[in-house]
Amino acid sequence: MTQSARSQGPVRIVGAGLLGTSIGLALSKLGVEVTLEDASPANLKLAIDYGAGAKASTSDQPSIIVVCVPPDVTASVVARELAAYPYAVVTDVASVKAQVLGELTAANADLSRYVGSHPMAGRERGGAMSGRADLFVGRPWVISAGEATAAKSVSVVEDLALDLGSAPLKVSAAEHDRAVALVSHVPQLVSSLLAARLVAAEGDDVSLAGQGLRDTTRIAASDPKLWIQILTANAAEVASVLKDFEADLHSVIQSLEQIDQPGSLATVSRALEAGNRGVERIPGKHGTKQAAYAQVVVMIADKPGELGRLFNEVGEIGVNIEELKLEHSPSAPVGLVELYVLPAVEAKLISDLESRGWKIAG
Amino acid sequence: MTQSARSQGPVRIVGAGLLGTSIGLALSKLGVEVTLEDASPANLKLAIDYGAGAKASTSDQPSIIVVCVPPDVTASVVARELAAYPYAVVTDVASVKAQVLGELTAANADLSRYVGSHPMAGRERGGAMSGRADLFVGRPWVISAGEATAAKSVSVVEDLALDLGSAPLKVSAAEHDRAVALVSHVPQLVSSLLAARLVAAEGDDVSLAGQGLRDTTRIAASDPKLWIQILTANAAEVASVLKDFEADLHSVIQSLEQIDQPGSLATVSRALEAGNRGVERIPGKHGTKQAAYAQVVVMIADKPGELGRLFNEVGEIGVNIEELKLEHSPSAPVGLVELYVLPAVEAKLISDLESRGWKIAG
Repeated sequence: MTQSARSQGPVRIVGAGLLGTSIGLALSKLGVEVTLEDASPANLKLAIDYGAGAKASTSDQPSIIVVCVPPDVTASVVARELAAYPYAVVTDVASVKAQVLGELTAANADLSRYVGSHPMAGRERGGAMSGRADLFVGRPWVISAGEATAAKSVSVVEDLALDLGSAPLKVSAAEHDRAVALVSHVPQLVSSLLAARLVAAEGDDVSLAGQGLRDTTRIAASDPKLWIQILTANAAEVASVLKDFEADLHSVIQSLEQIDQPGSLATVSRALEAGNRGVERIPGKHGTKQAAYAQVVVMIADKPGELGRLFNEVGEIGVNIEELKLEHSPSAPVGLVELYVLPAVEAKLISDLESRGWKIAG
Repeated sequence: MTQSARSQGPVRIVGAGLLGTSIGLALSKLGVEVTLEDASPANLKLAIDYGAGAKASTSDQPSIIVVCVPPDVTASVVARELAAYPYAVVTDVASVKAQVLGELTAANADLSRYVGSHPMAGRERGGAMSGRADLFVGRPWVISAGEATAAKSVSVVEDLALDLGSAPLKVSAAEHDRAVALVSHVPQLVSSLLAARLVAAEGDDVSLAGQGLRDTTRIAASDPKLWIQILTANAAEVASVLKDFEADLHSVIQSLEQIDQPGSLATVSRALEAGNRGVERIPGKHGTKQAAYAQVVVMIADKPGELGRLFNEVGEIGVNIEELKLEHSPSAPVGLVELYVLPAVEAKLISDLESRGWKIAG
């Protein structure tokens, strides 16, 4: 890490969960001084042990404060920090932005030093123990400045986002909340409602589940206590998107119930085709990254040492693996290793591996 | 592969798309004689070139015929094959079973030799070029025998499923169609309707998309022409599940629209919690496999040879990797390798790796 930090520090992080710990880990690696505070002493100790920063003390003079507490207490903690540290810029990472800003405005907080943030990153597992320094790399970091926010405060938070490897994205609180209703909150509820249908499933019906069901319901395993806070804070925007969804759903149901009537097939087809068009609008993971890699699938025998032998030889060939996946079937004598490499080296990798006796799949 | 086949062959495959080609590849590898037919000469040639079998000829005397054509022509092709090959057992792979059986009954086909199949396997990409011999390994293979089906016919198709590495699952056509409405057809429509909301998204809203949106809408990219056939053939079952979904959705929308009213929070919470319980009912990928593995995350430097060094040492330690995943951030100097191993060897792997200088992540 020869990179130097844009952020001056010290950075004070309030709340050492997944996001707070990850921010602390990344900044500490860059040599920025980080202090941590958490309502739970055990949680705080864990984050400090992981290297996310030092324990906060009353003599700290932070230049930036990042509030990483649950959404329902975010505004009050931000207000408290603004008052306690009159020279610091304060930001938060709550998933809904207009409500926090509204509460701070109502509380007469010093809004010139407040900038709302929402890093578009997370993991299914929460807590300090899931923190990772690279959590934000390549992800959008929403920066919502209010009318009262000083330009200097915005650039402090932009520098923070850049230090964490994120792409800062300036969006107003209202625009942000409208966007996340569509791309995050509605998918969460739809996934939950879909998975809820399985609760009363008869007999072995669920044993026929395939990857489609697993993908569409993965986020239905999310924490209800966190999500009820998020959905409450953005209820109007979420309801608005869901009503359009409901209208489409209703015509599809009507068409299925009278599938032989004129127009029914067309209605269902239109829904499927609109789904195709909608998916096309989603940008690839990390921008255009996935599309940019070529996939090479290698068959390997399912025994210790085979992966080592493969990757050793890939190293000898001199090709860097950007991503990889092992597909392994319990009863099969072979596994399939999916290697993702830059397209420029794909042909070389395939021919070199084949000449070394590896079997490349379809 | 020293395994010998249960199926006697010759096996005749009608329709050399993804499923037909994959069945042909797997059986050919086992030494079973396979002949192929396809309405498209180009498609047929591709499947033959891939090694899925030989071109069908009028002198073939197949013992099993597998019909892998689109759902809307499945029944007529099965009827034709039953008539043309009076000694062969005929099965099909259509995603909806009751309609095919109904049409064959109406056509007075010889149902003693017909067994419905539905292998629960697929890929996003279709066509012969996506075929793989291991497509069915570890996946359920639904076998729907009718009242008129001879026991011998059923065991012929069971042997076929076992040869392909699948787990045969005997389910009536009606039970099958009810189950796939819930675990496959409704998730498809819900995903399409959700993705359809993105079509009219304003400005850069979609640029805030995260993994949740990608997962929930992945199958919305599926082929509408195929899905309209599937949904049409199972319309009543699909509509029935969707109506329950719609009722839940409606109460959630009402609660969000008056989130401050008594009971509103409880309604939304219940939906989220029911989603949790629904997800828990889904068996892990390949049975209970995923849950059975312990995860060990190793940090590695992002340069050629590092993966080789790691897996070489894992081989020396003598531990078998069941699944693995590489998480790699474009600009980060390190990558995280997630190793999945049997819980019994987790502690040994961690301590041996650490003593060799590898960094294990939280």
